[in-house]
Amino acid sequence: MTVRVGVVGVGNIGTSHALNLARVVSGSAVSVLFDADADRAAALAADLGARIVPTVPAVFQADDVDAVLLASPDGVHAEQLLLGLPAGKPVLCEKPLATTEADARAVLDAEVARGQRLVQLGFMRRFDPGYVQLKQELTAEGIGEPLVVHNVHRNTSAPYGLETERTLTNMVVHELDICRWLLDEEYASVMVVAGRPGPLTPGGQHDPILVVLRSASGVVVEVEAFANAQYGYEVVCRVTGSHGQAVLGDGAFITRSKGFARGVDLPELWLGRFAEAYRLQLQGWVDALHGGHAFPGATAWDGFAATVVASCAVEAYRTGGWVDVVLPPRPELYSGAAVGASS
Amino acid sequence: MTVRVGVVGVGNIGTSHALNLARVVSGSAVSVLFDADADRAAALAADLGARIVPTVPAVFQADDVDAVLLASPDGVHAEQLLLGLPAGKPVLCEKPLATTEADARAVLDAEVARGQRLVQLGFMRRFDPGYVQLKQELTAEGIGEPLVVHNVHRNTSAPYGLETERTLTNMVVHELDICRWLLDEEYASVMVVAGRPGPLTPGGQHDPILVVLRSASGVVVEVEAFANAQYGYEVVCRVTGSHGQAVLGDGAFITRSKGFARGVDLPELWLGRFAEAYRLQLQGWVDALHGGHAFPGATAWDGFAATVVASCAVEAYRTGGWVDVVLPPRPELYSGAAVGASS
Amino acid sequence: MTVRVGVVGVGNIGTSHALNLARVVSGSAVSVLFDADADRAAALAADLGARIVPTVPAVFQADDVDAVLLASPDGVHAEQLLLGLPAGKPVLCEKPLATTEADARAVLDAEVARGQRLVQLGFMRRFDPGYVQLKQELTAEGIGEPLVVHNVHRNTSAPYGLETERTLTNMVVHELDICRWLLDEEYASVMVVAGRPGPLTPGGQHDPILVVLRSASGVVVEVEAFANAQYGYEVVCRVTGSHGQAVLGDGAFITRSKGFARGVDLPELWLGRFAEAYRLQLQGWVDALHGGHAFPGATAWDGFAATVVASCAVEAYRTGGWVDVVLPPRPELYSGAAVGASS
Amino acid sequence: MTVRVGVVGVGNIGTSHALNLARVVSGSAVSVLFDADADRAAALAADLGARIVPTVPAVFQADDVDAVLLASPDGVHAEQLLLGLPAGKPVLCEKPLATTEADARAVLDAEVARGQRLVQLGFMRRFDPGYVQLKQELTAEGIGEPLVVHNVHRNTSAPYGLETERTLTNMVVHELDICRWLLDEEYASVMVVAGRPGPLTPGGQHDPILVVLRSASGVVVEVEAFANAQYGYEVVCRVTGSHGQAVLGDGAFITRSKGFARGVDLPELWLGRFAEAYRLQLQGWVDALHGGHAFPGATAWDGFAATVVASCAVEAYRTGGWVDVVLPPRPELYSGAAVGASS
Repeated sequence: MTVRVGVVGVGNIGTSHALNLARVVSGSAVSVLFDADADRAAALAADLGARIVPTVPAVFQADDVDAVLLASPDGVHAEQLLLGLPAGKPVLCEKPLATTEADARAVLDAEVARGQRLVQLGFMRRFDPGYVQLKQELTAEGIGEPLVVHNVHRNTSAPYGLETERTLTNMVVHELDICRWLLDEEYASVMVVAGRPGPLTPGGQHDPILVVLRSASGVVVEVEAFANAQYGYEVVCRVTGSHGQAVLGDGAFITRSKGFARGVDLPELWLGRFAEAYRLQLQGWVDALHGGHAFPGATAWDGFAATVVASCAVEAYRTGGWVDVVLPPRPELYSGAAVGASS
Repeated sequence: MTVRVGVVGVGNIGTSHALNLARVVSGSAVSVLFDADADRAAALAADLGARIVPTVPAVFQADDVDAVLLASPDGVHAEQLLLGLPAGKPVLCEKPLATTEADARAVLDAEVARGQRLVQLGFMRRFDPGYVQLKQELTAEGIGEPLVVHNVHRNTSAPYGLETERTLTNMVVHELDICRWLLDEEYASVMVVAGRPGPLTPGGQHDPILVVLRSASGVVVEVEAFANAQYGYEVVCRVTGSHGQAVLGDGAFITRSKGFARGVDLPELWLGRFAEAYRLQLQGWVDALHGGHAFPGATAWDGFAATVVASCAVEAYRTGGWVDVVLPPRPELYSGAAVGASS
Repeated sequence: MTVRVGVVGVGNIGTSHALNLARVVSGSAVSVLFDADADRAAALAADLGARIVPTVPAVFQADDVDAVLLASPDGVHAEQLLLGLPAGKPVLCEKPLATTEADARAVLDAEVARGQRLVQLGFMRRFDPGYVQLKQELTAEGIGEPLVVHNVHRNTSAPYGLETERTLTNMVVHELDICRWLLDEEYASVMVVAGRPGPLTPGGQHDPILVVLRSASGVVVEVEAFANAQYGYEVVCRVTGSHGQAVLGDGAFITRSKGFARGVDLPELWLGRFAEAYRLQLQGWVDALHGGHAFPGATAWDGFAATVVASCAVEAYRTGGWVDVVLPPRPELYSGAAVGASS
Repeated sequence: MTVRVGVVGVGNIGTSHALNLARVVSGSAVSVLFDADADRAAALAADLGARIVPTVPAVFQADDVDAVLLASPDGVHAEQLLLGLPAGKPVLCEKPLATTEADARAVLDAEVARGQRLVQLGFMRRFDPGYVQLKQELTAEGIGEPLVVHNVHRNTSAPYGLETERTLTNMVVHELDICRWLLDEEYASVMVVAGRPGPLTPGGQHDPILVVLRSASGVVVEVEAFANAQYGYEVVCRVTGSHGQAVLGDGAFITRSKGFARGVDLPELWLGRFAEAYRLQLQGWVDALHGGHAFPGATAWDGFAATVVASCAVEAYRTGGWVDVVLPPRPELYSGAAVGASS
């Protein structure tokens, strides 16, 4: 039996997901598409043998849609989730859950009110083979107790301009989530160190920027983010433990020697680095839909927590001091391995 | 529409393929299984919702089988292919095509006589993302004209004893194929240098062993094979070109520092290194079955050529001198991108 | 002509310096030794063809001593320098200049009062070929304008117990100096982030620890120090610039594959990593003594500045907040390439 | 006491040695210089406080010369050694000992006739810290019994044209010597595989070229030499043993990320890679001269053996087959740690 997915938003990432669901993931098909740009939705639908619908609710309500992939612009995620949840269909929503803490809270509350975990959030790094291996190192046989996590996150450039606050909410939020997941605990406080801006940084903004966090148990987490790094896209995560350390690199296969240098290529964009993570995320979601077991990825609670921490980071950036991260009690719904939904 | 695959042989690799076809590859299902051990076939069939049949011909002839995956013992590949080809169904056959040159020739002739490319041979390295990237380096923008290819191939141990001739036909054959593919030309001659055997090498055998080949255009290809290398499984391929060189490593993600050393883990077995290649090979095959286009992998001709070269290497090992590689003219069937079959 | 050096203190590092001066450095000899333990001084003197004297002043005043190497315990550096400076002989003093800011200031004032740069401080990393190459990257042809400097400093263990304040003044002080030298500017402020102590950290202490500094121009400098890191000795320095980044590693020559791992050895102690830096520091000092030109290494001002910043880091550790680094105006004596002394 | 060295030949390498002896090596000075170009000899002499003499014998016979550094053109090494040996002074002779086997034999015979080891040959790689570490790996605690040695040797370009036979005698001879030293045994046979020449290779020549040797005990030694490699200077040596392998790289300190690539610089020329080896070679020689103990480097016997093997490689290149390496019995003079000479 095939899970029929309705896709909302077919920009770059939505199209990539749709192609994966139709042609790479086992057990899924794309049945319905919606995009504000109906022409591009129609073109992709023709290619995939799907049909288009004129509204977002029509995707959620379609009889031939078992589950929904939400890849619309960040700013409408919350609104569309609130609109769609009553249909009771599982949703894989691209990160972030919402762009404000209030909106994220509204989605969380709506899901808790239904008493059913329908939303999986697209923090795809949790499926990256590298991060999965890194997490396996955090044991006595590996590096011992984790004590410091140092992250490097570089983008080649900031194509639509650069606002430091967006660097925190859109770029650093990946590390905020993945380090929660690595350490399996919440953050207690956050501080942002804004140094000298680079020559390519717009006036009044800061890039690179250093985010320092303390987890509930006191692990120090740093994120060195640089949105205009010029030299390429790069993600590094080094966990230092009580008895060793483990560093996640980029798994390059080819070392080239040419022109008096020997090294590996760096990609210009993130997509290549995490292509396999995206595939595995979708396969895991579809498998859960088939099997009736809990989604393996980030929950609405995880998405809410990431939004709260990113908001605290923004406040810390504005004030220059430490900001305590205060989360409400975690709803019971997210405590176990509750079944999400079945197809 | 789903390609229904019949699987012959469900040992380690056959089971791995069956699981991939049923649960990971998009567009395929496993419908029928055969194994000489009917119990293990039945157990896997129950798991996958497939049925078992009592003979190999029954797999090829089943109405609910669109294509066949052949993962039986090496020695029966040729016989089973000859038995199955008349059914006119596409076959993905684990390497090698045959264990003797005569058998390989018989399969090749049978396929040529039908005038249809039905067989794809499971030289999975051609689908490995690392080798694919390496091949892309062989251009003017990359390393220039390829001049020397140096391969390292290590197995941790030789579990069923070690015979040097089998090292050549079973282990080195991977490099024989992949370097033909990288260079896109045939070999002209081969020599084997048998040095001092290691302390773990059985009497009368040689391990490690060095195979040196010259391609038709004169590229030198070396393979340093070591079946009892002890330290782990490892494959390296370095292509030196007129203006640079490119080295294929293992794409490790994690570097660990512990106990006064910093480094990466090496696997004990080959499967992990090439898991992604196996998946992509199956997906590419299934896509070709859906699309009615040519199989993207090794053909029966490639399998025949690899068998011939491996035989020459065995002769070179026995005689100690250079042996010319003589292939018959390549049949017309293998010259273009002929359509293999449609689902 | 040979520079005759008197050596004060022949513990591990003093003995190493004396052997280098006698047998490895060109143009120097060891003529006089002093150590509180007269027996070990005598043993080394016999080996080197030197003589021993009973007091520190006797070293400075000896007719057959052209210059002094001070490798006594940290706590007496300042006192011995004040005692020795009136003799007007050049001194290479192991770091630190002093263990308190007041003592460091007293030495600085004494040297300024004489109007002659006699003291070179043994911050040997400035002579390490790796750091020298790293500094060369900080140009438009290299990585562009430096924006963030991230340092990793690991000791295998803290043999005499661990006090976090000593980690800052003895271990992190190396990064405090070398980053000043790399960036060629002073620090403006410093903060210390004390996370969860490791299981091997004594009660009430913090290890690992994160030091964050801002330079006068706003470059962010981080030092992740771990005195009980267990896995080995390691120093890493990564400078991220506006157009690229450069990382200083350890220059290992040998990669070993064994036991399912491939990697490099890490030393247990620092001496091996910086043996060449120590040699080059001594050779540079002796060359300056011969040539009548300025010492190439750290000055008393550099030593004073490092002590002040380390004190600020201690205060930041105690208070948990940012501490401004306030230095007096740099004395004119240290502004140019003033001649130190001639032999 | 200072060893006064007379230097014959002050081209690039002779000048480098002279500067090292005068300014970097402990315990030596340069007293006398000779070069066919008297002007350049005089210029360097003025710089070093040395004097020049008009003939090579005058260097050997000078009262103020304790030992001689021979850095004249390769073709006159043998003649000058034969001329100089009667003076009974130690000589450090740049490699090769001679350009023909007959000449090498004549020097060997002359030294044996004197019954005194006066000549040390400048195979500087024996002093390279990397090769020294590599040799230490060849034990049970390391990689086990050595079985295969694979060498890569690249020059950026062949500035004075390229003759394959000179590649063997001048470039590959470094590996011929260093692998003898690593394995501590002689070669039994050699073969040369000449593949397709690169587009920059002059007509009738072969580059790259593969040299394969068998040692007396059967270890396989390969050298992949490429004189016009374009991408930079590079030397790699990988020793595969019964229980692991060790690879000698270039010990780079700095990894740079820029322009969508991350890697290390490769030098254009060999001098930088082996600068430390040259220094340590000279210091070791001078220490032996002071200490009256045997020279630590290659002997005339080693130089003779390297010349014989290189000649065999040339013959193998011409004939295309295996050539046996036949050496006369090793003279008694080279069997122990005989004292060379004292200063």
